[in-house]
Amino acid sequence: MNKNIKVNAAILIIGNEILSGRTQDSNTSTLAKWLNSSGVKVKEVRVIADIEETIINTVNELRKTNDYVFTTGGIGPTHDDITAESISKAFNLDYEIHKEGYKILEAYYKPGEFNEGRQKMTWMPKNAKLILNPSSGAPGFNVENVFCLPGVPSILKSMLGGLRNVIVGGQPIISHTISLRTVESEIAKSLTFVQDNNKDVEIGSYPFFQAGKLGVSIVIRSEDQLKIDACNFQILEFVKKKNIEIIPLN
Amino acid sequence: MNKNIKVNAAILIIGNEILSGRTQDSNTSTLAKWLNSSGVKVKEVRVIADIEETIINTVNELRKTNDYVFTTGGIGPTHDDITAESISKAFNLDYEIHKEGYKILEAYYKPGEFNEGRQKMTWMPKNAKLILNPSSGAPGFNVENVFCLPGVPSILKSMLGGLRNVIVGGQPIISHTISLRTVESEIAKSLTFVQDNNKDVEIGSYPFFQAGKLGVSIVIRSEDQLKIDACNFQILEFVKKKNIEIIPLN
Repeated sequence: MNKNIKVNAAILIIGNEILSGRTQDSNTSTLAKWLNSSGVKVKEVRVIADIEETIINTVNELRKTNDYVFTTGGIGPTHDDITAESISKAFNLDYEIHKEGYKILEAYYKPGEFNEGRQKMTWMPKNAKLILNPSSGAPGFNVENVFCLPGVPSILKSMLGGLRNVIVGGQPIISHTISLRTVESEIAKSLTFVQDNNKDVEIGSYPFFQAGKLGVSIVIRSEDQLKIDACNFQILEFVKKKNIEIIPLN
Repeated sequence: MNKNIKVNAAILIIGNEILSGRTQDSNTSTLAKWLNSSGVKVKEVRVIADIEETIINTVNELRKTNDYVFTTGGIGPTHDDITAESISKAFNLDYEIHKEGYKILEAYYKPGEFNEGRQKMTWMPKNAKLILNPSSGAPGFNVENVFCLPGVPSILKSMLGGLRNVIVGGQPIISHTISLRTVESEIAKSLTFVQDNNKDVEIGSYPFFQAGKLGVSIVIRSEDQLKIDACNFQILEFVKKKNIEIIPLN
């Protein structure tokens, strides 16, 4: 951790199944929360199709404008899994069998079951670093600041632990939520005033419906607990004055 | 509907709450399915922060490279709702009170409740077309090929009906799914063969775990039912030969 720098990341979801609406992405939320806790802020997310040219161009754009890029999807054994080959081309690296990856999968499968499809998963950009997979064997990989993870949410989750000491973030981003029994328009003006007085803190306002009742969650985000406390105090001040009910957090 | 053209769209999710991982986006899936049924294919999705410059630049990039752009989020009454003002700037249009929108909200709220926060929701790019909101009053808006919708999923859903005759798509995209009791590596080679023989059909392969068992869903997508039928036949041929169990669709 480096307390004095801001570190950001882009998430690149590779998969026609998200673009068609068939599958709802949950990896963004998993990755974003995990990155926040490591002091890395997600600056943008993109979802793109399984098209080689699109993957190459997008990776090459994102890796230049972000400290880290995390891709999900497209590293399985079938014809539509083209992430590894596309990343090789993006970096002008040979696409070849990763010896260590091959050994891992050869040992993982029963004799005779390490077939052609499974062997495809050991093809990677030359000299890629492996990201170990404790749930289903096939590793992800890392080239420079680009980290390639699978699309299956449970497998992706299981692989993050191994990256904890690889990703170097800044000060972790702290978040504080105040939930109120009100509507946004009632607090909009006062909240704008607080935001204007605390320009370097991120204050978000999110309406919700819960058990048939309307409410608003105010989310304060910053690397600095003191700044969050100051905002919190100013918000509670107008909440009290307006006689708005605070909803206890579960 | 124009049967001879391909129509595509980009979805632009505007919201810090998605980038922080606090909220899991579900609007992409809703919009993508609805667009598919209108013959519009989602080419890319982006999630960006509530930052004016980012919104302006991204909208201006996407609206030139896509037939349609759908934005979600940032059109409420609070300080972090900056979509309408940013879109005005992106199109070099004045940001002003929309008279028709003002009348709608004035009639929607009880006398005395149409306060400053709520009035903010009637500020839009000059001459924007309204997208009516049957669930909570405040309309979205449309400028040229850009359609701005709210972030709350239930409200967004309720507004799509009014757009059915506004969006002109191509031939609707048909999708057919075959679920198999197998693993991807067992069918990878045969499936590649089918894909190579049917290059203009999109064939996706998606592993799943259900009730403790592994399976694979093969999804065939095309505008042409005959092409889907041909692929389906070729897949069922190798499935039969390999003696793989077909899982009936629920």
